[in-house]
Amino acid sequence: MSENKGPPSRPAFARWMHTTNDITRMFLEAGQVPDLISLAGGLPEADTFPVAELADAARHAIEEHSREVLGYGPIAGLPELRDAIARRFSTPALVLARANILVTTSGMQGLDLIGKVLLDEGGLIAGQYPTYLGGLDAWRPRSPSFRNLMLDDADLDPCAILAGTQFAYTVPNFSNPTGRLVGLPMRRALVDAAHRTGTWLVEDDPYGSLHYDGAPLPRLIELSAHKDSGHPYSGPVVYMGTLSKEIAPGLRIGWTIAAPEMIEALTRAKQGSDMCTSGVTQRIALAALERGLIESIHPTIIATYRERRDALCDAMSRSLATWFDWTRPVGGMFVWAVAKDPALNTDRLLQHAMAERVCFAPSSVFDPYGANRRAIRLNFTLNAPKRLAEGVQRLAGALERYQREEPRR
Amino acid sequence: MSENKGPPSRPAFARWMHTTNDITRMFLEAGQVPDLISLAGGLPEADTFPVAELADAARHAIEEHSREVLGYGPIAGLPELRDAIARRFSTPALVLARANILVTTSGMQGLDLIGKVLLDEGGLIAGQYPTYLGGLDAWRPRSPSFRNLMLDDADLDPCAILAGTQFAYTVPNFSNPTGRLVGLPMRRALVDAAHRTGTWLVEDDPYGSLHYDGAPLPRLIELSAHKDSGHPYSGPVVYMGTLSKEIAPGLRIGWTIAAPEMIEALTRAKQGSDMCTSGVTQRIALAALERGLIESIHPTIIATYRERRDALCDAMSRSLATWFDWTRPVGGMFVWAVAKDPALNTDRLLQHAMAERVCFAPSSVFDPYGANRRAIRLNFTLNAPKRLAEGVQRLAGALERYQREEPRR
Repeated sequence: MSENKGPPSRPAFARWMHTTNDITRMFLEAGQVPDLISLAGGLPEADTFPVAELADAARHAIEEHSREVLGYGPIAGLPELRDAIARRFSTPALVLARANILVTTSGMQGLDLIGKVLLDEGGLIAGQYPTYLGGLDAWRPRSPSFRNLMLDDADLDPCAILAGTQFAYTVPNFSNPTGRLVGLPMRRALVDAAHRTGTWLVEDDPYGSLHYDGAPLPRLIELSAHKDSGHPYSGPVVYMGTLSKEIAPGLRIGWTIAAPEMIEALTRAKQGSDMCTSGVTQRIALAALERGLIESIHPTIIATYRERRDALCDAMSRSLATWFDWTRPVGGMFVWAVAKDPALNTDRLLQHAMAERVCFAPSSVFDPYGANRRAIRLNFTLNAPKRLAEGVQRLAGALERYQREEPRR
Repeated sequence: MSENKGPPSRPAFARWMHTTNDITRMFLEAGQVPDLISLAGGLPEADTFPVAELADAARHAIEEHSREVLGYGPIAGLPELRDAIARRFSTPALVLARANILVTTSGMQGLDLIGKVLLDEGGLIAGQYPTYLGGLDAWRPRSPSFRNLMLDDADLDPCAILAGTQFAYTVPNFSNPTGRLVGLPMRRALVDAAHRTGTWLVEDDPYGSLHYDGAPLPRLIELSAHKDSGHPYSGPVVYMGTLSKEIAPGLRIGWTIAAPEMIEALTRAKQGSDMCTSGVTQRIALAALERGLIESIHPTIIATYRERRDALCDAMSRSLATWFDWTRPVGGMFVWAVAKDPALNTDRLLQHAMAERVCFAPSSVFDPYGANRRAIRLNFTLNAPKRLAEGVQRLAGALERYQREEPRR
């Protein structure tokens, strides 16, 4: 130990830290930059938050349930909230009990916990491709390998992809980033493959309530329950939900619904993550469920977001049709646009877009290996129609700059 | 894939899942069993919670700051809360800025994040021994190795123990489980060793405000700042605090104070854990700091817990002195009692204690390798003096049963 050479260098950070990205952080912070139009994040319209009702629920929770909500609670969640979630998601086909429910501190925590429970270093995941970057963030510390689940591929054999993986990850309703709704035949095929291969099938469903056209399709966990003779549910689907899109993200309340053995395992993992979720926010969530807050604000959310989806897609049709292909999504928060030119590099395009004061999410961050540079994800829930149109105008300007300034390959 | 043999077995859980324990869970659930006296957990007296003030703060937070607290927030925490924490912990020697502060969803999350950031599979930790079981829980998914830091050992060479480890873990104020206050010479020696070896030094300080006799000692991070020429703080100490003992655990609000490079790294790790902490609970925490709630309830907490510490120790002197040795702690929540008979097995004793309707935390759960069976941790904050005395009576009964029924070795 030499005292004269200055302090020794500090221990290296864990290996995965060199592979992470700062894109989620950039999205969150972009909200603070004046006159930047952010089409990047997945942020809700704050005018939809039921402020007065939540303020009253918070006061009531603390005044009337002080010992419960201000103390430590059970790791798996407040029993009444677990029961309320079980009731909400039960159907004639799907029988749920408290033992099927884990309350999580945000939907993101559910993704972190499934990684803790199932992934050893380098474990194998079958991930719907392109893949939600929050999932990639959550699992990165375990340096997993990915097998891409290409649900658009007509030749896909789900059994071949799922076999031998620790779990399959899917977002059947309005996938992040593509906005894609997975159809009923593929839902059945995924569930069948999970039963046949014995692999866990994660159904991440933050956007299920954001349905603008047509009727909702059955959840994978419901389809799976048809093959499930026992009560409570004991099948292979691990369903994850959240109040972030239906009420407000700031509560950080989510839930995982799964076979009791999986809930047990996730609960043991949660013990070492945050011990238990805040009783205050859990009681507010319970009030939101019991008082029908979700249902009361739902029509406003749907009308607002449907109008914005149309405003974005109409503006894209006017300005971006020569550059990109896309489909108008029937739900969710995003439009996924794929460049006609396979050589377009949307990581580079983002730099030009920032110069034009607009930002989006580039496809590279939704690729487990960072390779896809051809597409962009545009959010339509945060901005009003006029601002969406202005953002698309700026994006068209960025594309012109890109064409002028980027060297041709 | 055979359809006739029933479904294949599911993927194995990650390896660490076979090494975990259910003791924290047992402690939390023991609170629900009628007439069980729990001396096991680290639960606060709920009568000290400032209920009316927190209910008002919660209502106010949501009504007056709805967009901020109900939306997604910055990963590292609300800027105003980070600034308030920086002000609270700044001293003439220790200059802190916002970049030194991370808000965590509970103190436990800080332990989880330090593991994510610093531990590759099998990484080496120098842990104050015996070791807080929450830390062991948090790091277990990375299957670390431990070098025991025996702070009671007069021959201890901190440099030799710290060198080559990813971090050292200490609880200088009223350690969990031992209640030990680390003296000033050892504090200086630890800080010096961290500077010399370049290792990160975690100072976990949930109990620092629970000081019943004598004056507080300087924090490691303050001692470390004396050697730190730069502003903001850039030294090796990673200080962790929480509102759980000063206000209420149910807020799940903690903080980590460290060099900006470490805060950056922890923030990237937090992104994949829960994205951000609830704005609602952060705003309540900010109100607690700004309105002086901590200071206003502090005298009641100290008076209550001092009386209970004395009640427990007095009862132990009456009933347990032939079995155990212990020291009356000057702060914290626990008394650590070591059996006079080295063959006493406190895991077995716990079974007899449960039969007598009393429980405690056995020493095995505070040993990274589960080997120590000779001691028990008794909590004195949750129960009133009479109930503490009754609990000790029952424990004496359990010891008699143990002596009658356990085979001699």
